[in-house]
Amino acid sequence: MGGNTFGQLFRVSTWGESHGAAIGAVVDGCPPCLPLSEADIQPDLDRRRPGQSRLVSQRKESDTVRILSGVFEGKTLGTPISLLIPNEDMRPGDYREMQEKYRPSHADYTYEAKYGVRDWRGGGRTSARETAGRVAAGAIARKLLAERHGVEIVAWVGKVGRIVAECDVEKVTRAEVDRTPIRCPDLVVAERMIAAVEAARKEGNSLGGAVVCAVRGCPPGWGEPVFDRLEADLARAAMSLPASKGFEIGSGFAGTDLTGLEHNDEFYMDGDRVRTRTNRSGGVQGGISNGETIYFRVAFKPTATILRSQQTVSAGREETTIEGRGRHDPCVLPRAVPMVEAMAALVLADHALRQDAVKPR
Amino acid sequence: MGGNTFGQLFRVSTWGESHGAAIGAVVDGCPPCLPLSEADIQPDLDRRRPGQSRLVSQRKESDTVRILSGVFEGKTLGTPISLLIPNEDMRPGDYREMQEKYRPSHADYTYEAKYGVRDWRGGGRTSARETAGRVAAGAIARKLLAERHGVEIVAWVGKVGRIVAECDVEKVTRAEVDRTPIRCPDLVVAERMIAAVEAARKEGNSLGGAVVCAVRGCPPGWGEPVFDRLEADLARAAMSLPASKGFEIGSGFAGTDLTGLEHNDEFYMDGDRVRTRTNRSGGVQGGISNGETIYFRVAFKPTATILRSQQTVSAGREETTIEGRGRHDPCVLPRAVPMVEAMAALVLADHALRQDAVKPR
Amino acid sequence: MGGNTFGQLFRVSTWGESHGAAIGAVVDGCPPCLPLSEADIQPDLDRRRPGQSRLVSQRKESDTVRILSGVFEGKTLGTPISLLIPNEDMRPGDYREMQEKYRPSHADYTYEAKYGVRDWRGGGRTSARETAGRVAAGAIARKLLAERHGVEIVAWVGKVGRIVAECDVEKVTRAEVDRTPIRCPDLVVAERMIAAVEAARKEGNSLGGAVVCAVRGCPPGWGEPVFDRLEADLARAAMSLPASKGFEIGSGFAGTDLTGLEHNDEFYMDGDRVRTRTNRSGGVQGGISNGETIYFRVAFKPTATILRSQQTVSAGREETTIEGRGRHDPCVLPRAVPMVEAMAALVLADHALRQDAVKPR
Amino acid sequence: MGGNTFGQLFRVSTWGESHGAAIGAVVDGCPPCLPLSEADIQPDLDRRRPGQSRLVSQRKESDTVRILSGVFEGKTLGTPISLLIPNEDMRPGDYREMQEKYRPSHADYTYEAKYGVRDWRGGGRTSARETAGRVAAGAIARKLLAERHGVEIVAWVGKVGRIVAECDVEKVTRAEVDRTPIRCPDLVVAERMIAAVEAARKEGNSLGGAVVCAVRGCPPGWGEPVFDRLEADLARAAMSLPASKGFEIGSGFAGTDLTGLEHNDEFYMDGDRVRTRTNRSGGVQGGISNGETIYFRVAFKPTATILRSQQTVSAGREETTIEGRGRHDPCVLPRAVPMVEAMAALVLADHALRQDAVKPR
Repeated sequence: MGGNTFGQLFRVSTWGESHGAAIGAVVDGCPPCLPLSEADIQPDLDRRRPGQSRLVSQRKESDTVRILSGVFEGKTLGTPISLLIPNEDMRPGDYREMQEKYRPSHADYTYEAKYGVRDWRGGGRTSARETAGRVAAGAIARKLLAERHGVEIVAWVGKVGRIVAECDVEKVTRAEVDRTPIRCPDLVVAERMIAAVEAARKEGNSLGGAVVCAVRGCPPGWGEPVFDRLEADLARAAMSLPASKGFEIGSGFAGTDLTGLEHNDEFYMDGDRVRTRTNRSGGVQGGISNGETIYFRVAFKPTATILRSQQTVSAGREETTIEGRGRHDPCVLPRAVPMVEAMAALVLADHALRQDAVKPR
Repeated sequence: MGGNTFGQLFRVSTWGESHGAAIGAVVDGCPPCLPLSEADIQPDLDRRRPGQSRLVSQRKESDTVRILSGVFEGKTLGTPISLLIPNEDMRPGDYREMQEKYRPSHADYTYEAKYGVRDWRGGGRTSARETAGRVAAGAIARKLLAERHGVEIVAWVGKVGRIVAECDVEKVTRAEVDRTPIRCPDLVVAERMIAAVEAARKEGNSLGGAVVCAVRGCPPGWGEPVFDRLEADLARAAMSLPASKGFEIGSGFAGTDLTGLEHNDEFYMDGDRVRTRTNRSGGVQGGISNGETIYFRVAFKPTATILRSQQTVSAGREETTIEGRGRHDPCVLPRAVPMVEAMAALVLADHALRQDAVKPR
Repeated sequence: MGGNTFGQLFRVSTWGESHGAAIGAVVDGCPPCLPLSEADIQPDLDRRRPGQSRLVSQRKESDTVRILSGVFEGKTLGTPISLLIPNEDMRPGDYREMQEKYRPSHADYTYEAKYGVRDWRGGGRTSARETAGRVAAGAIARKLLAERHGVEIVAWVGKVGRIVAECDVEKVTRAEVDRTPIRCPDLVVAERMIAAVEAARKEGNSLGGAVVCAVRGCPPGWGEPVFDRLEADLARAAMSLPASKGFEIGSGFAGTDLTGLEHNDEFYMDGDRVRTRTNRSGGVQGGISNGETIYFRVAFKPTATILRSQQTVSAGREETTIEGRGRHDPCVLPRAVPMVEAMAALVLADHALRQDAVKPR
Repeated sequence: MGGNTFGQLFRVSTWGESHGAAIGAVVDGCPPCLPLSEADIQPDLDRRRPGQSRLVSQRKESDTVRILSGVFEGKTLGTPISLLIPNEDMRPGDYREMQEKYRPSHADYTYEAKYGVRDWRGGGRTSARETAGRVAAGAIARKLLAERHGVEIVAWVGKVGRIVAECDVEKVTRAEVDRTPIRCPDLVVAERMIAAVEAARKEGNSLGGAVVCAVRGCPPGWGEPVFDRLEADLARAAMSLPASKGFEIGSGFAGTDLTGLEHNDEFYMDGDRVRTRTNRSGGVQGGISNGETIYFRVAFKPTATILRSQQTVSAGREETTIEGRGRHDPCVLPRAVPMVEAMAALVLADHALRQDAVKPR
C-alpha cells in the first residue's frame, strides 16, 4: 500500500523527492550472508546517473550511495538494508515556472489533483530521479541472482525513434551494450541512433524508443499463478517506470499475426533437460519460467520535457504557455537500460525467494 | 502471496481447478450497502462462458453463480462475498493423454517443474476456466464503479490474426460490441474476423489477436505512484490473463515513433475542467488518472490447443507427439473481452478505495 | 486488507455469516504434495462444533467440511484449497429481537456503526461460527507442521471462572485433554469446572476462563523481527478470537514480579543442542523461537449471551431491555481449545514457510 | 513480509542496527496536507532516548531526527516520509564479549540460529534502539489522530516489580505522567517505584513491570473483523516491543473471574450517543471501537542485561559464563511508555484510514 513498495519477499521501498535532501531505498527480505558493499551497487548507479554523455541530462549528480544498515563485516544480516543517495545539484530556481503551470504530459496536474499539494521543484517525487533508489536496490537483487542462482540480466536499447536494432537475446553482453553511450549493441545502428538524438537535442525536441531485456539462466518453476505470473509482475515492474507506455514478452504483439500451429513452442529433450525448439513464449508458460531465456520489450515515450513553447493551463485555471528550460534528457533510453534491468532483477529475486517457500520436497 | 489474490483494498481471490467440484472467488473489501444479487453478476459470466457460438469452445457449462455470503437483504454487508460456480461438464477422460505428455505452449511442464504435481484434467488450475471467478468478481467491481463513481468500462476485439479494426475509444458501447459473436463493433471487419476464425477452426488451427479496453468517466487522482501506477496495475492485470503476451496504454509502442513535440498532450480549460487536447497519454500521467478516457490494448497469442499433431516430451522424459483433442477455442478473443473488462474493473475499484483513504480534506 | 485474511505465506481467508447458506475458508500457500483429505480436517471441526455436550451450545450442526479445490488424487496441488461448510440448523426467527436491539457486550452496535448495515441473524459475521473456517484451515496447518517439521500443538482449559488448573506444558497430550468435555487435563479440577459451568447454565449465566497452549518441537529460528515476532503474531492470532481479552507468553504478567536475575534463562549444552535451563521466555527470544517449548495463555471473557434481562438501547436509539433466548454457550472455553490450537498452527505454518525463504545457505 | 513493516494503509518500516551508522524509519501512506516538521517528532524521541535520568541507560544519544522526504513547505506531500536518526555514542568495544557468547534471555542465539550471522555490537537489530524509528513514526500518527480525529493517547507506568498503581484511564494526562522520571502519575507510588529501581540498579539487577495505555476520543467503527480486530492489532503492536510478555484489554485476565451477568456492559443513551455504563470491554466490541475509552495493559519482563555473572554457552558451543557490562536500563518501563503510545498510534492511524476506505455513504 502507499504504492512505494515493490515485491513480496524481496521488498524494496523507495523514498525521496528530486530536490529534497536525499533519495533512498530500503530493501527488506534480502537473505543473510550475501557478500555486499557499496562497490556492488555504485556501478549500476553510474550507468543511470545524469551527465554521462551529451545524450542525457547535464544535471551533475555523483549519485554516491551509502549503505546505512543491514550489512555487517561485508555480509548482509537478513535485516533491512537502508540505502542513501544525497541530492547534490539542486537548482529549484530553474523550476519556479512549474510552481504555477502544469507541464504537458508530466504529472504536475495529476499529483495536484490527487494530493492537493505537490513539490514543484523538478517534479518532486514524479521525477525519474526516484529510480536511482530502484537501481541501487536492483543491484543487490542482481548480485543475489548471479551468486545463488546463476541468473544473468542484460538489457539494451532496441529502438530510438524509428530506428530499430535486431539483436540476439541469447548473446548480447553488458560489455557490448556499454560500447556506445546510446547502449545499443549493434554498432552501426547505434551510430544512427546517436545522430538522431543529437539532432533532437539541438532542436530542443526529444525521442522515445524501446528497451529489450533478456534474463538468462532462470531455472524452471519461478512465477506464481494466477495473478502473480512472472510476465504479469514483469509488466507491472516495467510499466511502473516513468515514461513507459508498453510491454510485451516473447512474441508479443507481433505474435498475434501467427496461427497456433506457427506459434506453439514444441518440446524436445536436450540431454536430460526439457527444452523448447522455439521460444515464442519468451521463457514463460502459464506464468511460470520454463528454463528458456526470458525476454521482453518496453516502450518509452519521447521525453515530455522539451525546450519549446507549449500550450497549458496554470494552477489558477488560466490558459497559458510554458517553455521548457534547464537540464533535460533528449532521449531517456540509454538511462532506461539500467532501470529496466533493475526492475527485472527485483521481480526475479522476489520470485526466487517465493519459490523457495513453496517448492516440493 | 500465493499469487491467487488481486488488489489491495478491493481484494479478489480465486480458487478452483477446471475439472474439480467447483470454482469460485472471494471478494473482500467491497464497501457495505451496495445493492447486489446474482442477477448483477450472471450476465458477465454468460458473456465469458463456453458454448456461446461456434467461434468458441463447445464445453457445456451454465456457469451459474451463487452468492454464499456477504450479502443480506439485497445489500452488501462489508464482509467477504463468497461466489461459487459449480463445474458441470467435466470429461476428464478426454484428457488422459495430458497425464503423460506436456502440451506445447501450455503450462503442463512448468506446473510440474514448480509444484512436483499437477492436475492434468483439462489443465487444472492453468485452464482459462479460472477466469470465471475473476469475471464474477469483476461484475461486482463494475457495479460499484458505475453506481458510486459513474465509471464505465467497455472492451472489444480490435484484432484477430492480421485483421484489424479501428474504433473510437470514446464511443464504442457494449451493445455495439455484442452485436456479433466475435465482439468487434465494426460490423464489416467483424464479418472478416468471423470468417477467419471459422477457417482456423476447420483446420484444427487457432488465431490470436488483441482486445482494446476503454475506461470512461474516471475522475482525476486515481493511481498510486510510484510502483502502483494505474498503468502498472492495469498491465499486471492484463498480463495475468491466460494467453496474454503484450500490453500498451495510450500511444503505446506506436508512440515511440513520435517526437516529444508531436507526442505531448497540451492542456486547455473545458469550462472549469482541466483537459488535454490530445490523449496520447491514455488518460494517465505519472501513474495517476487525469480525467480523460483511459484506454489500453492487450495482445493474446493464438490458442495453444490445436487439433494437430505436434512434437513434445513425456513426463517420463521421452520425445513423443501429441494431438489436440476435445473441446477448444479456435480463437480466445471473444471470450477475452469480458475478462479484460473484469480485470480493468478490479484495478479501478481498488484504486477508487485507495484514493478514498488518502485524498486531501 | 479487509481483515478476513491471516498469514503472509500460509494464508487463510474465511467468509460466511452464521445463518447464511454456508461458511468457509480458502487456504492459499499450502505447499504441494502434502497428503490431505477431509478426514484430516473433520476431527478438529468435531471438537469445535456445538452440541458436543451440555456444557456448550445446543445448535445442531454437523459441520461437515468439503474440499472443493487444491487437492488432487489425495495430495495438495500448491493451488488454493477451498473449504466449504454448509449451515444447517438456521433459526433466524430466534433472533428477531436482535434486529431491533443491541445485545450488551456483543458486536451488534459496533458493526452497525462501522458498516451502516448488519446481518442480525445470530450475529451474522460476528458469530463464533466464523471460527469453523479457521479450525478447518488450522487442521491443514497442523498436518503440515507435524509431517514436515515434527511440531506438535496441544491446548487445554487452564481456568474456568475462579477455578485454576496447573498442568505441565511439556507433557499434556490431546488424549488427556479430551478425557472430559471441559477439556482440562487435570481430572479433579475438571470436575469442579464442569460443576461450575452447569451451575452457570442453570442460572442462565455464563463463565469465562483461560486456555493454555503448548507448541512442542519447534526448531530454533522461526519468527521475523521486528514487527512479526512470533509472540506478536501469536498474540494477534489469539486476540482475533471472539471473546478473547488477554494474551501472555512464558512468564507473562506474573513474570513482572521477578528481577532480571530471577527471570533470565541461562543457556547450557544438551549434547550438541543449545538449551535453556529454565523457560520463562516461553520458547521465544527476540521474536524468534529458541527450540524450547513455546507456551502461552489466552483469556476469554464470560460469554456475552446470557438468558437474563439486561438494559440496552434499540437501533432507533430508545432505551429498552433485552432478554437472551435460544441456544448459547454457558462457557466458551471447551470450544475455544481447538480454536486456539488452530490459530497457533496458522502462525507457525506461516513462519515455517517464511523461514524457508530466508534461511542461510 | 520481512517483518520490518507495520500497518496496511499507514505503513511504517524501520531499519538500522544499534551500532551502525544510523537508524531510521519510512512512513508510507500518511495523508497529504498534514502540517509536519521535526519539532512534532523530537519531543517523543526525547522521552524515549537513553540518559534522561539515572533510572535508564546512560548511553549518550541526542536522537536528533531529520525528515529527508515527504514534507514540503511544512506540509506532508502524501509521499513517503523518510526519517533519519544518526547513531552517535557507539562503543562496539564494550561488546566484544558478546561476539563469542550468547547473553541469557537476549536474542543473540536466536538471531544466529535464524540468519547464520549477527551484528553483535550492542545487539545490532535486536537492540531496543530500533524502537526510536517507531517512536518517530508514531509521533506522526499521533499528530494525524489528534488533528483529524480528536483522538488522544496517554500511557503510563502502572507497575514496577511488585509495586502497582491504580489510575483512572479516563483522566490521566501526559503532564501528570511526566512529573516523575518513572512516568507513573500516582506520585506516592512513583516514589516507591523509583526507590525500587535505584536499589536494583545498585545491585546490578533489573526490574520489570507493566504499562497502561488509554486511547480517548476514538469514534465508533474503527477496527476490521475478523482477523484485524482492533484488539488483535493492538496486541500484535504491543507484543512486538522488546521485552513485552503480555497484553490485556479492558477487563483482561481479571475479567475471567466474573460471570457474564457481572461482566457485560449494558448500553444506555447519553444524549444522542450510544454508550455503555461500564467499560469492561475496553472500548472494543467484536473487534470494532464502540466510542468508549480504549485501554490496555502491557507486561514487560525485567531487563535481560544485568551486571552479574550468569551461565551461558559460546558461539563455539562451549559452556561458559558471561558478566553484563557497560550501559543498561535497570528498568525499561519509563522508556517503554512512549514506545507503547507510538505503537497504539500506529494501529489507530492505520484503522482510521482503513475505515475511510470502507465506511458507508
